[in-house]
Amino acid sequence: MINKMTLASINEPGFSQEKLGYDEAVRLTESEIKRLLRTAPPLIRPQTSHLAQATGKGIRARALLACAMDDTHHVSRDAVNAAAAIELLHLATLVHDDIIDDADMRRGIDALHVKFGSKLAVLCGDYLMCLAMDLASQITVSEINRDKVGNVLPSYFKEICLGEIRELSHTGDLDLTENEYFTIISGKTAALFQATFHAGYLLSDEPVEVKELYIELGNRMGIIFQLTDDCLDFVSSRKTVKKPVLTDCSRGVMTLPLIYALKTDKTLRKRLEGGLSEQDLKDAVLAAGGIEYTRSKIEESRSKAEELIAALGSENKRMILGQLLDKASAF
Amino acid sequence: MINKMTLASINEPGFSQEKLGYDEAVRLTESEIKRLLRTAPPLIRPQTSHLAQATGKGIRARALLACAMDDTHHVSRDAVNAAAAIELLHLATLVHDDIIDDADMRRGIDALHVKFGSKLAVLCGDYLMCLAMDLASQITVSEINRDKVGNVLPSYFKEICLGEIRELSHTGDLDLTENEYFTIISGKTAALFQATFHAGYLLSDEPVEVKELYIELGNRMGIIFQLTDDCLDFVSSRKTVKKPVLTDCSRGVMTLPLIYALKTDKTLRKRLEGGLSEQDLKDAVLAAGGIEYTRSKIEESRSKAEELIAALGSENKRMILGQLLDKASAF
Repeated sequence: MINKMTLASINEPGFSQEKLGYDEAVRLTESEIKRLLRTAPPLIRPQTSHLAQATGKGIRARALLACAMDDTHHVSRDAVNAAAAIELLHLATLVHDDIIDDADMRRGIDALHVKFGSKLAVLCGDYLMCLAMDLASQITVSEINRDKVGNVLPSYFKEICLGEIRELSHTGDLDLTENEYFTIISGKTAALFQATFHAGYLLSDEPVEVKELYIELGNRMGIIFQLTDDCLDFVSSRKTVKKPVLTDCSRGVMTLPLIYALKTDKTLRKRLEGGLSEQDLKDAVLAAGGIEYTRSKIEESRSKAEELIAALGSENKRMILGQLLDKASAF
Repeated sequence: MINKMTLASINEPGFSQEKLGYDEAVRLTESEIKRLLRTAPPLIRPQTSHLAQATGKGIRARALLACAMDDTHHVSRDAVNAAAAIELLHLATLVHDDIIDDADMRRGIDALHVKFGSKLAVLCGDYLMCLAMDLASQITVSEINRDKVGNVLPSYFKEICLGEIRELSHTGDLDLTENEYFTIISGKTAALFQATFHAGYLLSDEPVEVKELYIELGNRMGIIFQLTDDCLDFVSSRKTVKKPVLTDCSRGVMTLPLIYALKTDKTLRKRLEGGLSEQDLKDAVLAAGGIEYTRSKIEESRSKAEELIAALGSENKRMILGQLLDKASAF
């Protein structure tokens, strides 16, 4: 029984000794995502091919691969599959989010529901979620006493759904507090980053003692990413962010710059309820210090994230995660 | 390494020697589903509690438990979790289906999107899918050389999504052929039954040689179940089936009784396009022999299913699966 079991584990699909350099793994993940989308069953290929035109910056995939790096800065083929699974899960949530937020653009192209209708977009999101879970479930090898990647993802996904529901329930809620806001983004954005870092850790050779450190770093990175995204909605051009700007507020999605501005500028609420032009809203949030305040919150999380990164394995890993931190907080 | 690995496998959560009788397991599954729905996070509890009011007949749960029975007619606690996971996955698909089909009732109560809106229903379906996958992923024990339950489910779920997309793409398609119809229901209905029987087999002590037999039986049972459901839409009262009747056609969902009637009664297409009362449609399908023909197809699949059941392990298992076959084909 013992021998058979060991043998079975080694023979499980997904077991592979092949190792890849970080940059190669990033490229392979990108092409794997595009391949999966472009070779989906013909029935759903028009939708997945549309999505393949703009697969995003891949910050989550890069983060997973960086976390999964061993001492020689290499990752396994399984890490590439896990990174692709995380990006596809992210894509699935975007497809459903855009239906829920009535968003018309995503990553510089038409949102899926705009091009194909909401019904098909619901099913396409479901399909992508299953495709990602299927891909993750193929990763059967893990270190002793570690969970398998496919087993830890569903639980984080429950948190993401709950974050989305919490956000929906506070649509247009001008009374949303900063605390409630952070609870929302911990679910809707940070939980996926936690899943990413957790999965990366599981595929790494890092000791079990640093598991929680990885998950905490994922949470920080997610928070930073969302706060930066919130600022970009106010300060960037449509071209740069590849989606309409100043839309969070128009769709009733409350963001930290606005929450802070509402707290400090007591006239804003009335003006907002009365109907405010985009430029006036932008000016008001900036004048009230909403962006500055959010930036200070980003810096706070950044310091904590940097502390966490400093405790990690290799210099190269620390460098790449530091670069990703820069990327997540750049605007 | 070898010893540690073996030890780790035995210590994995979900490993349990506790065994339950079939009836006890059925009851426990039902209460477990209700418990999970009623104790969901407060944020989503209004929706899950609504769904807990009507959790269905549980034919899939019963089928899984019957398949998982050992020689002494007992199942493990893991089988109960797998059965609950399958029913929750089914529930997730129903929530999304009802949005897509614009259905107003389900299992005798308001469809979720009718009561809470489509946006929340999309997220609630997503949450239920993740809850089910999370539950399934906890089932970590399996026999040597067998997949784990959580690992086989996502792939079947891709098939279900594709079946739904195929159905949606043929909405109102009066030219739908019988072959195309069977391709649709193989995905949208039979794939979940295949997942059910496959999971049941994985948790049983049946030899690997009968794995495909279980999956094939699941397919047959699913086909029978769907064909019966199609007939019920024409011949039953709203009270009996706990959802509106004659709605498949009104929503453009093509069913076998109608496909057959359109083939044999050459006047029907024109009359249907011109607008037909519910009673006239029902009369036309019955007069054209649509129900009789579908019943003959049910009998065909039943014979094959009975052959498959006859090849299975114990008398008790054969008896229970036979009863479920009766239940699936009863109208």
